[in-house]
Amino acid sequence: MAIARAVRSPYGSRGIRTFSHDGALIQEKRAEIVRSACRVFIRKGYDGTSMRDLAKAAGRSTGAFYHYIGSKKDILYLILDFTVMNQQEFLERMRDSTREMGTVQAITEAIRIYLESFEEYADMHIFVNHVMVKLVRNERRMMLDAAQRVGEFFEELLQRGIRQGEFREGDTKMLAQNIVVLGNSWVNRRWFWKKYFTLEQYAQGQTEILLRAITLADRYETEHGERTIAKSTAGR
Amino acid sequence: MAIARAVRSPYGSRGIRTFSHDGALIQEKRAEIVRSACRVFIRKGYDGTSMRDLAKAAGRSTGAFYHYIGSKKDILYLILDFTVMNQQEFLERMRDSTREMGTVQAITEAIRIYLESFEEYADMHIFVNHVMVKLVRNERRMMLDAAQRVGEFFEELLQRGIRQGEFREGDTKMLAQNIVVLGNSWVNRRWFWKKYFTLEQYAQGQTEILLRAITLADRYETEHGERTIAKSTAGR
Repeated sequence: MAIARAVRSPYGSRGIRTFSHDGALIQEKRAEIVRSACRVFIRKGYDGTSMRDLAKAAGRSTGAFYHYIGSKKDILYLILDFTVMNQQEFLERMRDSTREMGTVQAITEAIRIYLESFEEYADMHIFVNHVMVKLVRNERRMMLDAAQRVGEFFEELLQRGIRQGEFREGDTKMLAQNIVVLGNSWVNRRWFWKKYFTLEQYAQGQTEILLRAITLADRYETEHGERTIAKSTAGR
Repeated sequence: MAIARAVRSPYGSRGIRTFSHDGALIQEKRAEIVRSACRVFIRKGYDGTSMRDLAKAAGRSTGAFYHYIGSKKDILYLILDFTVMNQQEFLERMRDSTREMGTVQAITEAIRIYLESFEEYADMHIFVNHVMVKLVRNERRMMLDAAQRVGEFFEELLQRGIRQGEFREGDTKMLAQNIVVLGNSWVNRRWFWKKYFTLEQYAQGQTEILLRAITLADRYETEHGERTIAKSTAGR
């Protein structure tokens, strides 16, 4: 059965798989369980959630659910596993689609992909962030490492931009981590952001703020066809 | 007794008090309870923490602890109350100390005060962030409103800078919220930040990134005595 296969292969026992090793259907089934479980966990807390709650959220009877999933801990591992795979997957997507681009365009596109993937599994990211303190050391390590690979990707992109003379010298570690934080900020503060911005506006606005900070000023102004500096200076 | 007075006055029943209404000793006692409780809650989770754990963390016998505090919920209210007061307090401090400053200096100083206050009660901010989902609507509203006042302060500061010709036109709502997020990012990702930055370096680096994004380019370069643009352009 799909659920059984989706749940077996406990997280950590054989490293990170990529989506491509699994059939699309199993992957879909897995995503479904992760989504419904995370929604319940966020609302009731991990400790306050029963297997009955989880079965109900997944649209199954408790008996049927137990047939495939031994315990709440299984679901937790499924979620952690899925999160790591998901991060691996969008990291590959960011790499592939930006390889041929100039750094300004590449960073714009990578931020868009990164934020869209956060939006797609917003509840999962919120839950994983909350459950982190409950994990044992090597589980937590694995989750943090996955997040760090995203930071390293952006750091390399920033450094490439500096080498190529597109970006000014700067603290690429801090800037890259700030980009990583954009995803968490979007899902954790969606009550605020969504009052004022769509995801697209958020991605564009944050990219513009970032580019203003790192792009050589004359170049940025020229590329965007603005003359803000000249205007403001003249106005004084 | 100090603890009893510290704990009574349930959160929400009489609005926000400021530190100045209370004796320094009671305030200290309160801070002590909040600190020790938040440390335990983060480690064991709110649901997984017993009154015995809380008493032990506060260095008291369970009996003595119950004498002053009726339930775990009392402690939760104490923490929420304290958080709102604390935010009120550093907001006033930010206002008072930046009133006479130019906007660049004001924003630099306000970010420093804001981040230092987050560092001082890091566990509390982490816990409150985690417990938010458990709150009833008007409790949550009160916590979010307190956080929003900080965002509004920074938004006004940014708008003042634009009016005075110090900052370029830009999305002040997004920028202000990004500053608010700097505090959460510091406490939630301290495992990362502290590997590379002290709080002082973090505050300085983030302020510099922000100022690069919002300051009119020629002005920023001149004030900081740098000639990055000229140099980089020449190097191409």
